[in-house]
Parts: sequence; C-alpha cells; structure tokens
Amino acid sequence: MKLSMVADHARWPKENDMIFNLSERAQAAEKAIGKENVINATIGALMDDEGKLITMDSVYSQLKSLPNNQISAYASIAGQDDYKEAVKKVCFQGNDPDGYTRVVASPGGSGAIKLAMWNYTNPGDVILTSDWYWSPYGIIGEEAGRSVANYKLFNKDGNFNTESFKDKFAEIVDKQGNIFTIINSPGHNPTGYSVSDEEWDEILDFAKEVAKDESKKIVFFIDVAYIDFVKDDLESRKFFRKFGDLPENILTIVGFSMSKGFTAYGMRMGAAIGISSNEDIAEEFYYSAMHSCRANWSNCNRGAMSVLSTLVADQAKFAQYEEEKKSYKDMLVRRAESFVEAAKGVDLEILPYRDGFFVSLPCDNPREICEELTKENLYLVPLKMGLRFAVCAVSEEKCRKAPKVIKEAIKKIKSVEGSLG
Amino acid sequence: MKLSMVADHARWPKENDMIFNLSERAQAAEKAIGKENVINATIGALMDDEGKLITMDSVYSQLKSLPNNQISAYASIAGQDDYKEAVKKVCFQGNDPDGYTRVVASPGGSGAIKLAMWNYTNPGDVILTSDWYWSPYGIIGEEAGRSVANYKLFNKDGNFNTESFKDKFAEIVDKQGNIFTIINSPGHNPTGYSVSDEEWDEILDFAKEVAKDESKKIVFFIDVAYIDFVKDDLESRKFFRKFGDLPENILTIVGFSMSKGFTAYGMRMGAAIGISSNEDIAEEFYYSAMHSCRANWSNCNRGAMSVLSTLVADQAKFAQYEEEKKSYKDMLVRRAESFVEAAKGVDLEILPYRDGFFVSLPCDNPREICEELTKENLYLVPLKMGLRFAVCAVSEEKCRKAPKVIKEAIKKIKSVEGSLG
Repeated sequence: MKLSMVADHARWPKENDMIFNLSERAQAAEKAIGKENVINATIGALMDDEGKLITMDSVYSQLKSLPNNQISAYASIAGQDDYKEAVKKVCFQGNDPDGYTRVVASPGGSGAIKLAMWNYTNPGDVILTSDWYWSPYGIIGEEAGRSVANYKLFNKDGNFNTESFKDKFAEIVDKQGNIFTIINSPGHNPTGYSVSDEEWDEILDFAKEVAKDESKKIVFFIDVAYIDFVKDDLESRKFFRKFGDLPENILTIVGFSMSKGFTAYGMRMGAAIGISSNEDIAEEFYYSAMHSCRANWSNCNRGAMSVLSTLVADQAKFAQYEEEKKSYKDMLVRRAESFVEAAKGVDLEILPYRDGFFVSLPCDNPREICEELTKENLYLVPLKMGLRFAVCAVSEEKCRKAPKVIKEAIKKIKSVEGSLG
Repeated sequence: MKLSMVADHARWPKENDMIFNLSERAQAAEKAIGKENVINATIGALMDDEGKLITMDSVYSQLKSLPNNQISAYASIAGQDDYKEAVKKVCFQGNDPDGYTRVVASPGGSGAIKLAMWNYTNPGDVILTSDWYWSPYGIIGEEAGRSVANYKLFNKDGNFNTESFKDKFAEIVDKQGNIFTIINSPGHNPTGYSVSDEEWDEILDFAKEVAKDESKKIVFFIDVAYIDFVKDDLESRKFFRKFGDLPENILTIVGFSMSKGFTAYGMRMGAAIGISSNEDIAEEFYYSAMHSCRANWSNCNRGAMSVLSTLVADQAKFAQYEEEKKSYKDMLVRRAESFVEAAKGVDLEILPYRDGFFVSLPCDNPREICEELTKENLYLVPLKMGLRFAVCAVSEEKCRKAPKVIKEAIKKIKSVEGSLG
C-alpha cells in the first residue's frame, strides 16, 4: 500500500470540482472569443448581462461605512444578538412560527447544514432528500459517515411527489427511529421548484401522523438559501407559520444564508434557526449548535453580521436594499421566463421551474452533452440525472437562445448513442 | 428521561463561557465606575491604553478600498491561489522548510486546528498538548470523540520540559501507533512561552528516533497564532526550517491566523499549512483538508483573503503595515515587561513569559482568586492551574499596578483556605 498519513475516514478521491472546472473553461473561452460569443451558465451567482458579478450597493456601502472595530472584533460564538434578531426579521418577515426559536450564526448556508446534520444524526444514518439535490448535502454527510437516500422530487404531473416522499420517509424512520430530511425550497437548487403551501400541508400532516409514536424523532431541515429570489417575497414566506405548534418530537431547523439575498457569497454568513414547541428542545438545539461552532470555526464574520443588523435597524436603508434587490429579481424572472418559453418553443424538456437561480433539464448522458455543448460555446453543469442551467448568470437574450442549442446537442448525442447501441 | 432530540454525541452541558462572562462583568464595571478605575485583563485582543480595540489602518483601509466583487465572490474551496502564496510569504518570511508544502484556507486558526485534527486522528484518539493549554483544543477534540492528554510544559528551571514531553509522546505513540501533538509557539496562549531553537531540536530528534519505526505516524500541529507579536520577527521564524526533510512518517501542519497579526479577529481568516518530504503525503493533506472545508464551511472570507494578498503584493503597503504592527508590538513588549518587573517586585510567582498576548500565574483556587479580584475591579481569566492576564489588553500603567493587587488577593484567599483547612 502507498504511504498515507491521513486517518481512514479522511481518505477521498482526488476529484476536481466539475462545476469549477467547466466554469474555468467557460472563462477561458470568453477571453479567447469574447464574452458576447459564450454562454456561461455554470455560475451559481447573480451576474449582470455582461457577465460581471452583481454586488448590491446598499450592502457594500454599508459594509464599507462600518467602523473598523465592528469588522475587527470577535463575534460571540453563536452570533451577535442583534444579528440573530435581524436574521429572524429578514427570514420570516412577520411569518414567525409559534413556538420557541433559537438562532445560531454559521458560515453561510453550508455551515448551517453542518451544524444541523452533525448534531441531529448519528454516524451510519441515512439522510433523506430529493433525487434532484445539491451535491454538498452528500459531501457534508459523507465526511462524518452519514449517507443520503432519495425520494422522487416530481410526480408525473410535475408536482411534489408526496407519495414517494412518504414512502421513503416511513422506510427510514421505521428503521432508524429518527429521520433528518432536507427540503430546499423555495427556489430549489438545481431545479427551481418551490413546494406549494398545500404540498407543505401534506408533508407536515404525514410527519405529524408519524410523530404520534413518541419514540420517533423527526427533524426537518429547510434550506431557504434562495428565498430572496422568489416571485413574491411575502407569499413565499407564509409556509414558515406551518412549523409552529408541531409535536415536540418534530424539530424544524431553517438554514438561512446571506449569500444570495445580499450578494454576500464570499462573506460566508448564514444561520441555523431552530424551531420547537418545547423550550427545552430549542435550548438544546442552541447549546449543541454552539458547541459545534466553537469546535469547527469558533465564531463567524463580524462585519457581515453588522451589515445585516445595521441594514435591518435602519428603515430607509432597508427600503433601499429592497428596491435594489427587487430590480435584480425582476431581471432574474425575465431571464427565467425567457428560458422556459424558448424551451417550450423548441420542445426541450425541462423540469418545472418556479423560483430561484437555476433551471434543470432531465436527460441521459449529461456529461457527454455538456462536452458537446462546449463546442457551441455554451457551458452548463452536468448532474447525475440531467443538466443545470444558471439563469442567474446569463442575460435574457442568451437565455432565449440557449434552449435551441441544448436541444440540438441532446439530439446529436442521442443519435450517436443510438448508432453505437 | 427528559425529552431530547439531539444525537447522543451532541449533548453538552449548558456552560456559559467563563471568559466571556468575566469580560461582560468587567465592561459593566467600566461603565459604572469609569474605565480608568478598572483593569480588564480578560480580552484576548490588542487594546489601546483607553481599552479600545486596536484596528490597523493599513489593514482596514485596504479592505475598504477593495472592489466589491473581491469581497462578494465565492472563494475557491481551498482558498484563492494568491492568498495561499501570501500566507506562505508572511508566515515563513523566507524560512520555508525544504519539502512539499500545501496551503488550505480556514476560518481563523480554529478552523485550521479542526481541519488537522479531524483528518489526522481517529475517534477515541488521545491528542497530546502541554498542561497549560488553550481550552478550545479540548473542545475541538471532544466534539468528535477525541480527548487531550498533557505533558508538563515547564521543568523546574522554567524551560520546556523535554523529559515530560518525551514520556507522554512515547506512551501515546506506543499505544495508538499514531500521534497528533499540538505545540503553540511562539507566544504560547496562555503562558507566553516560546520554545527555543535548541528545544525544537530536542523535540524533533526524539520524533525522528520514534519515526524509525515506519509503522508509526507522527503529526506535529504548530499553532503560530501569536507569531507576529514576538520580540524578533525573523529570529522567531527560523525554527520553520527544522520541519524540512523530516522522515516521511512525520507530517507537520502549521496553523496560521490573520486574527492577531492583522487585527482581523472578526474576519475569521487563517490557513493550515501541510509540510512533508513526500509529495504524495502533501497532496493527501491538501485533498483531505479540502474535503473537510467543503463539508464544514464550504469556503472562506474572500475579502479577508484579498486583504492579505493585495498587501503582500504591494511593497509600500506592506512596509506600512509592518511599521504599524511594530509600533503596537513595541507597546505590547513594554506592557509585558512592566508586568513581569512589577511581579518580581512584589514576589508574585509567574510563568516564564517570552512573547505574545498573555502572562500566566500558577496558583491554587483560581476561580476564588478571580472572584476576589473583581472586588478590586481587576478582571482576569481563571484557568485550571492558575490565572491568565492579558497584557495585550491593559495599559502599561495598569500592567505595573496589577501584580501587587493580584499578590494580595492570592494571600487573602490562601489565609481563608488555611483557616478553613
């Protein structure tokens, strides 16, 4: 055996990040033939029509006007108190669920997932999420010996597949006694799906049924990373109320992130929000998560916390932020609608898009198709079951063009596969 | 049993941070009776003589002049390339050890410890550090089922206790087959001790002897969080060269932090630097640590990285930073010398101080003494085996006054204990 110093559990294949790699190739192409001739749909961040990262003035002027010591000082381990309050305010916007809520700061949404998964699952546990899912859920899990099981996200009508969800949920909770399930909504990455209020009711009614067996422990992790890029800010937050007054053996943890909603990706600022009808359970969440903070990253970006709390504390500034965000959201909606329409026009199958940064397309041989598309100077991300197109990063004009190009690449690969088969 | 939702491994006592609590009480006292009448030696950050946090202009003007997108964009998982190069430059300052070096960005020095400990120890392992040690080493360990064993830091002459180190090291490596040992030098927290070059030679000669058994795996984690606040920047970096050309089964990981050296505590920016004479081992370090990044916090503070790499790239700016840092370092040295001198004057026993932010005093009943001292409006931090006085946070004048006050409190508690005993 080759010499190795690392512990057995820490040995991973030397994989390069596929997304990163394609994104680099796209950038190289842009340099070589000009940005106007490349469609780079790999990037999970809001870009302007010229392919430049959008940074909100209201956010960055606030950051740069902070006194130095509000950036320099250590933050409290679980986050500054005013930040914790600000998180609840911007996340729930008045739709706070009834019950006991505790907020623990985290480095981005990823950190919140880590806090929740580490503390509420055991080594060897299976975590439930949909078959279309953001791959870091799996990476966060595998790092600590947890694995991921999937239900089918969509039924044949293109709605949330409640049956598949219930089946898998029941199977896991029967076997493990506990279940940790991640639902990324609204604006699911990678499909853009948003669970409807009626679908949430079905999900929660079922969970409540299971929870009647008091030995079962149920944790919902609701990843709302894209909640600020939905068509209706308020409507899409009403579902939070449904997590009030649940049985004591259902704990909800909301994963909040400043990355998208405040164009603050690089600042690494988020939070895990624990919600329980039992105060002891909420407190337990707080202290367990705080221990993990101390044991992983100690505390979080103080300046980023100050940006959020000072913005929220100042009505005029917050209104300016909201206006700015709205203009970008409107831009995003136009892009997504253009893509969806154009896909329909060329009969390109896409998954039901509702909100958020991405549209996905189901297909066979996604890697081959991605490679084929690079020849047309169109770059997107291959997933296990299809392709992810980042409408957040591509101009409306290019969003309108892309479906036809993709359709043809799929046809081409299909015919090659056919002739080989 | 009380209802609980959290996993068994994630249940911790609801402890409040003792340091934080005393620090809050000190601040309350400052408000009540005026800063000039309180000695607050609890804070592990550089404060000016008026008790205000010091923030270096050269660092913060750089941060605030960055283009927004250099703060906003996601960083690479393992850190931006120019940041990684800048880390090596400011950390080693030309004393790069021979061999293969890989840098992985982390949220502060804490994140670097996490990366190293997680990947190079197994659940149930014992980690070796000195009996005086920064308590988060234990917290980072216990979170993942590792525990801490100690050697005596000092021999009777007040030097590094090589005998005790060797005994414990041998005991653990015999039993476990592998050993992970943390040495925090120069400017050890909490004692201010710095391992001398001769002591490093003894330590490494012994490790090389153990490493002759090729089945043994030895990891040194060198925590250099305080390296920028030592009397001689260059002299105190020469020891890095000793980690070149070590046997392949000795891996060195240096824990770098921007917190102290750049007054950037709240930015959460550091790095783990892996050093090996074998390129595969260095690569293995890189990929394991990168997996942990993705699985814990995804990526780090992009703006903080840009601050370091732009400062390092600009000679004039870097010279300005060094000058500014020097002025604060000189201030720190004066404070520490005043404290040490005054302690000698009143015959107060302190541990051998060399560099860094803290001086420690060995004593019995540290909590009682701390409590007693609050009556004199002097606040410091109780440790298991004594008291920690933060010279970094207290004016020279107060550093000169404090030893007498502490001496009297110790006497008083001793006499109470005596009369009870």
